[in-house]
Amino acid sequence: MRLRNKPGAPAKIANYPQYVVDTPEKWQGRWKERFGNNNPIHIEVGTGKGRFVTEMAKLHPEINYIGIELQMSVVVVALDKLIAEDLPNLQLLHVNGGALTQYFAKGEVSQVYLNFSDPWPKTKHEKRRLMYHDFLVGYEEILIPQGEIHFKTDNQGLFEYSLHSFSKYGMLIEKVWLNLHESDFEGNVMTEYEEKFSNRGQRIYRVVASFPKK
Amino acid sequence: MRLRNKPGAPAKIANYPQYVVDTPEKWQGRWKERFGNNNPIHIEVGTGKGRFVTEMAKLHPEINYIGIELQMSVVVVALDKLIAEDLPNLQLLHVNGGALTQYFAKGEVSQVYLNFSDPWPKTKHEKRRLMYHDFLVGYEEILIPQGEIHFKTDNQGLFEYSLHSFSKYGMLIEKVWLNLHESDFEGNVMTEYEEKFSNRGQRIYRVVASFPKK
Repeated sequence: MRLRNKPGAPAKIANYPQYVVDTPEKWQGRWKERFGNNNPIHIEVGTGKGRFVTEMAKLHPEINYIGIELQMSVVVVALDKLIAEDLPNLQLLHVNGGALTQYFAKGEVSQVYLNFSDPWPKTKHEKRRLMYHDFLVGYEEILIPQGEIHFKTDNQGLFEYSLHSFSKYGMLIEKVWLNLHESDFEGNVMTEYEEKFSNRGQRIYRVVASFPKK
Repeated sequence: MRLRNKPGAPAKIANYPQYVVDTPEKWQGRWKERFGNNNPIHIEVGTGKGRFVTEMAKLHPEINYIGIELQMSVVVVALDKLIAEDLPNLQLLHVNGGALTQYFAKGEVSQVYLNFSDPWPKTKHEKRRLMYHDFLVGYEEILIPQGEIHFKTDNQGLFEYSLHSFSKYGMLIEKVWLNLHESDFEGNVMTEYEEKFSNRGQRIYRVVASFPKK
């Protein structure tokens, strides 16, 4: 995706600290305080334009959602959605998904969503894929015991890689959908990208994988 | 597949004990003796009409192959191929794939092939699927340490199930191909079924999974 620079973006983000958390490391271990309740916290790493996490937050008020996105040009699009909806159970973090342990304490997160993550198809870029070993270490640390990753993509190569990577890490492949939109899966919330590419006939893959018992 | 009864089949099988082993339990732990060498032994569980295992045996004379098939009507078809080729590194067993530990000693087999196994799609028939837990126990016992299962199918549901079943058993998902015929996989030998259904546009899935260290 080509991301255009948006001149007003930094100022806009700074204007909405109630939505885009300005110093998220300060909330490490204290997210329940910020949300004002003890509901489970689900994070989406690579939230993009925010449709998925916004819809999920509307559908599941009993869950607190945090959308994490490094690209400022799309964080502001997600922010617009959040301003429009004014959801108390959704926060955005404009930070790098590779540094999650700075923002969350051990076991603070109940579930991780990865949606249509950048495939980084070249082998030399394997370490940038969000399912690479080092990222899994981070997810495992911040997740509850046997916490789950829910991942979907239209990218066949990334999906093949992810099944291997999860397995090699010792994770359990709980369930696999090799054609999500033709399956009996209920309650699928589409991302912007998912709608566009599935309309073009792209098959959507999904997997739920859980971390091992310690 | 509708299997017609073949009246001459039992007699034919009995006439070729050099190809269709008549009392395979006698060879448990002694297959090297029967093959007359120390080459690794690869088995195919559900050999059907035998094209895969026959082609593999021709291509890899350094491997000993054993094709296992319960349906007499197709064992005789596989037998015809073997008679025509007269391969010293291929044997057929007309036995149930669920009783492998009767025919092989611990660690006697180097690799297991499962090709286009019956999907048994109903949940109540899960225990009949060749990737069900109890079958995995058997494969693990007869395989070398960290031995591999190589499985391919066009059946999406069975493939989804297998990834979960292998993972739940503690196996490592070594590699996954979500569209084998469009991949860079080299040396694929097709089964009769595979050729027919891939020609109709069916996607072929493949996975290599290995058993854990003890």
